[in-house]
Amino acid sequence: MNIGVIGYGYWGPNIVRNFNELDGVQVTAVCDLRSERLEAVRQRYPSTRLLTSDANDILHSSDIDAVAIITPVSTHFELGWKALSNGKHLFVEKPFTATVEQAEQLIELAEKKNLRLMVDHTFLYTGAVEIIKKFIDSGDLGELYYFDSVRVNLGLFQHDVNVIWDLAPHDVSIMDYLLNRSPRAIAATGVAHFDSDIENIAYISTYYDDNLLGHIHVNWLAPVKVRKTLVSGSKKMVIYDDMEPHEKIKIYDNGVNISPDKNQIYDYLIQYRTGDMIAPKVDLTEALVKVTREFQNAVNENRAPHTDGYAGLRVVKILEAATQSLRANGQLVELK
Amino acid sequence: MNIGVIGYGYWGPNIVRNFNELDGVQVTAVCDLRSERLEAVRQRYPSTRLLTSDANDILHSSDIDAVAIITPVSTHFELGWKALSNGKHLFVEKPFTATVEQAEQLIELAEKKNLRLMVDHTFLYTGAVEIIKKFIDSGDLGELYYFDSVRVNLGLFQHDVNVIWDLAPHDVSIMDYLLNRSPRAIAATGVAHFDSDIENIAYISTYYDDNLLGHIHVNWLAPVKVRKTLVSGSKKMVIYDDMEPHEKIKIYDNGVNISPDKNQIYDYLIQYRTGDMIAPKVDLTEALVKVTREFQNAVNENRAPHTDGYAGLRVVKILEAATQSLRANGQLVELK
Amino acid sequence: MNIGVIGYGYWGPNIVRNFNELDGVQVTAVCDLRSERLEAVRQRYPSTRLLTSDANDILHSSDIDAVAIITPVSTHFELGWKALSNGKHLFVEKPFTATVEQAEQLIELAEKKNLRLMVDHTFLYTGAVEIIKKFIDSGDLGELYYFDSVRVNLGLFQHDVNVIWDLAPHDVSIMDYLLNRSPRAIAATGVAHFDSDIENIAYISTYYDDNLLGHIHVNWLAPVKVRKTLVSGSKKMVIYDDMEPHEKIKIYDNGVNISPDKNQIYDYLIQYRTGDMIAPKVDLTEALVKVTREFQNAVNENRAPHTDGYAGLRVVKILEAATQSLRANGQLVELK
Amino acid sequence: MNIGVIGYGYWGPNIVRNFNELDGVQVTAVCDLRSERLEAVRQRYPSTRLLTSDANDILHSSDIDAVAIITPVSTHFELGWKALSNGKHLFVEKPFTATVEQAEQLIELAEKKNLRLMVDHTFLYTGAVEIIKKFIDSGDLGELYYFDSVRVNLGLFQHDVNVIWDLAPHDVSIMDYLLNRSPRAIAATGVAHFDSDIENIAYISTYYDDNLLGHIHVNWLAPVKVRKTLVSGSKKMVIYDDMEPHEKIKIYDNGVNISPDKNQIYDYLIQYRTGDMIAPKVDLTEALVKVTREFQNAVNENRAPHTDGYAGLRVVKILEAATQSLRANGQLVELK
Repeated sequence: MNIGVIGYGYWGPNIVRNFNELDGVQVTAVCDLRSERLEAVRQRYPSTRLLTSDANDILHSSDIDAVAIITPVSTHFELGWKALSNGKHLFVEKPFTATVEQAEQLIELAEKKNLRLMVDHTFLYTGAVEIIKKFIDSGDLGELYYFDSVRVNLGLFQHDVNVIWDLAPHDVSIMDYLLNRSPRAIAATGVAHFDSDIENIAYISTYYDDNLLGHIHVNWLAPVKVRKTLVSGSKKMVIYDDMEPHEKIKIYDNGVNISPDKNQIYDYLIQYRTGDMIAPKVDLTEALVKVTREFQNAVNENRAPHTDGYAGLRVVKILEAATQSLRANGQLVELK
Repeated sequence: MNIGVIGYGYWGPNIVRNFNELDGVQVTAVCDLRSERLEAVRQRYPSTRLLTSDANDILHSSDIDAVAIITPVSTHFELGWKALSNGKHLFVEKPFTATVEQAEQLIELAEKKNLRLMVDHTFLYTGAVEIIKKFIDSGDLGELYYFDSVRVNLGLFQHDVNVIWDLAPHDVSIMDYLLNRSPRAIAATGVAHFDSDIENIAYISTYYDDNLLGHIHVNWLAPVKVRKTLVSGSKKMVIYDDMEPHEKIKIYDNGVNISPDKNQIYDYLIQYRTGDMIAPKVDLTEALVKVTREFQNAVNENRAPHTDGYAGLRVVKILEAATQSLRANGQLVELK
Repeated sequence: MNIGVIGYGYWGPNIVRNFNELDGVQVTAVCDLRSERLEAVRQRYPSTRLLTSDANDILHSSDIDAVAIITPVSTHFELGWKALSNGKHLFVEKPFTATVEQAEQLIELAEKKNLRLMVDHTFLYTGAVEIIKKFIDSGDLGELYYFDSVRVNLGLFQHDVNVIWDLAPHDVSIMDYLLNRSPRAIAATGVAHFDSDIENIAYISTYYDDNLLGHIHVNWLAPVKVRKTLVSGSKKMVIYDDMEPHEKIKIYDNGVNISPDKNQIYDYLIQYRTGDMIAPKVDLTEALVKVTREFQNAVNENRAPHTDGYAGLRVVKILEAATQSLRANGQLVELK
Repeated sequence: MNIGVIGYGYWGPNIVRNFNELDGVQVTAVCDLRSERLEAVRQRYPSTRLLTSDANDILHSSDIDAVAIITPVSTHFELGWKALSNGKHLFVEKPFTATVEQAEQLIELAEKKNLRLMVDHTFLYTGAVEIIKKFIDSGDLGELYYFDSVRVNLGLFQHDVNVIWDLAPHDVSIMDYLLNRSPRAIAATGVAHFDSDIENIAYISTYYDDNLLGHIHVNWLAPVKVRKTLVSGSKKMVIYDDMEPHEKIKIYDNGVNISPDKNQIYDYLIQYRTGDMIAPKVDLTEALVKVTREFQNAVNENRAPHTDGYAGLRVVKILEAATQSLRANGQLVELK
């Protein structure tokens, strides 16, 4: 499979490296608007056939089977549409598209053309998320109570999208995958401190049926990096702390005892936890190895990849509703 | 000053001990419904004159100057009203009252009777909060951007109040004190997993003028205890982590550079922080020492205490609005 | 049982409180050289019959059954000898005595007089140490490889003993209990930065048979408090971090694979750990509750307590040899 | 400058990458005994002129100016000797050589031939060590009291060298650089649990004049990775924790008050620290960028590099003495 990669900025080099390391795949063309980025490709991968600043060179190339789009989200739809129209399988960086409508159109076109469409929800391919997923699906966690995720840091202030579209795709895709259901409504609050259109802090609440609640805090203006997700169920609770080098996942007994006896509060406050904590071994293989292999396999096996267009669409739906709610002072936005 | 203490459960013993250690103050009477709690007082403080299960014995005692009410919030109004009516100064555990109206009535009565009224917002008397307060007031933090507080643990499920009334009074009183202004609107989301009236997880957003945003996460169903507050300004950011034994306060340079040059992202991601971090020495004196002394001084000096009825009222206003919003699916509640 | 306590400084109040809370035990006399300390006892425990600055008042009192000595180690022998001579059971703070010879004489006297003798090795009664002990004795840890303990802080510089006699009794008593054998030799290094006789930093190596090695680092001049013990065996490893509020004990798979294949290093460095980590629930009951109860039971049941004179002697042997080695430039000191 | 690199195992790729990224330097030849490693070079750097399994091809090549030796220490002397003999500048991985004598001979030969000789003590080029060095040299730390370093992990069990030669070169080189003096004597203890010649845990004490003490703990059999160094002086103390992603360096006020008043212990235990803590911003540039540039500059400027042969020799002296002491039951080894 010959792949053309459009966009060689921060994330592009990881995509190119991982596709190039797959047997049976080679990145034969790279596009970037900046000549120094193309020069970086040339030095690192001298055998790359085509280096261009014009995406059309890739989109119309007859010997390219698939296109990977690693550009700002505002360009995903146009580039993706052309790629699919020209018969190329499509690999798109997250978030999938800038609107729900765009996502739906790309899915429809890919299906019509019988082409693969995959969104790079990288975190779903980490060993950590895989462990939590198995843990939920096996029933060990019990009935789900809430999902709470914090992703904050002293970040680059994007000029094209707000913090929801920049950071929350990670949390929303993890939440979508783990909970395996769609929220019925969204409410979000947030604020833009520097540029009235570009919120740099946001809190998103997602309402599900059965008293399940989701909450995501994303923030570009935090002094330290936090990447922490809690999933709580009726039997156990999981903490996923991506900043921990080794013990990324910790599983706790729920340990809640609802007692009619007020006096028990004293013992409770002293003893606190009611069971052991387990930190399972986490496979630390780079997630992009699995991401790129999944794309290759989906193409070769003519099947939908794990994180297909629908997965991308579900995420975009939540991002769009969250931004809408945020700008309406947190008003509840119902999802169909 | 002779003090009568009503309620000798979890917090009462700390109040009794601290009042008894003040020169010029003695706890001469203690009331609790449970005889074994009274027996505990008798053993520990054999010289306590009155041990009773009837609060009226204290409220009507002629030789008691002040009453401390350390009971569930639902009883604060009635007990407080009687205490003030009988000419006793009033010390009330937080939250002040169960409703805004009750708080206003107690304030009015205390003023009419020229009696002191103090709410035990303990955290405002900690060395940690004092440092942040000075830091904000001196202008070192710059213009305020946001206040974010997380107070979660595997807690006792209260039967009388939800998690907002149980845990958020701490954060709300700290927020009120540090930001030194009142929110114009509140939105809250949350859910009750066990008892339909008793929400055990809640997220509260408080909207201020000038793009200042507050957010509080309280939760009885978290596997580990977290007590962490962030205050961010245009110049610096503060993390207050109450679970840290020594470095409770960390002050970071804000370090945000809004760059028009996209290429700078690469340097930025590598270097991350743009300045030093300072963890100032924090006075670890037990806050209740200062709380009880403040009450004594306010009574002796015939002046309002630091955390007076109005401070208590401002907190109750936010708690009440938050619960109202939560039960209306996060609808914005405007505050007058 | 009537107990007389000699020494009401830093630790004495904990001893008095715990003995007083036992059914069937009362502290009827307290001795301290400082009148303000005696006044503190009087206020806290008004029913204490005898408050004195002369230890002989307690040692010769006819209605005292047992004496607890909570004074500097240099006084333990003389006070202990008098107590036993006068027919009183003896409870001694650690370290037991200032020399091996003194320890042996007290043990002999207690046996001759058929009196109980207990040393307050408090840590052996913590839930954390109990868990590790069970874990070793069950064979789950496998063959023992090493014991490594670090106990450092910015401490008070004692004027009477060096850091070995101040801090290492904790680690040595834990090591003695867990490993359940005696070292054949000791080597120690250290240095005194302020007072030539009072070393403030020391490293102690203890050599056992079968390639088992012990090492203890004690230090009064460290910027942060560390209390961390590692015990490694052929099957598992344990970390005991006493500064952790909740997860004091962590148990790791040993996970060592000795590979003849040099290439395996690459996988190894990426995957690192080879198994899960478990943090068992630790009983956080105050250890002194169990310490004082054990003394009471030993007296009542006329049996040796868990941490008897021999346990105290084994610890003193190591402390004495370590100081001797330290002052001989780390020369190996063989133990008989 | 054309460089030939011998050894493309774990560390070699980093060396090749960094030399190749320097202007004016290219890696023109790589040697490794394993064909798959050479193939890795070919794929990554297709323009490398010479790929060989025979080091002599590099050592005798006429168009190679400098040789980098990234092989096991046992081979350093022979390869280094040949490189220098053939007129090539020499870059050697740490530890410099397997014996003091070998180090002295290579230094002598390099001087005779007027060639540069540099040892890759990578850590001395990190931003963290640079900060501590400046801090010591400016006198801010005060008179030096001790250096304590812990470098432990669940490591690969080497088959050719013990844990001292594998891990301690890092700590010893940092200690040598920061303290800027040589120890007068060494004592070490340790044990081999699996292979009688290959100690897997060791404790090294280094004695300096003026009551300065060094101590290093290296260990292949620890459940978690620790890389922590303390340097304490009369004014301040520094903690360097290399596992911290951001706050690698923390500087504490010494805060020791030697008090003649025993009563002060109570205040002391409550207040603990006596000053602020500062975590300065650390330059996180990859150290090898500076290492390789220093080698290039030293060659171009015909001057000794920062970490020259003498720096390498000082480290080897300590490693050799430590192993000697360890095998003599910790007997003190005097250094000339």
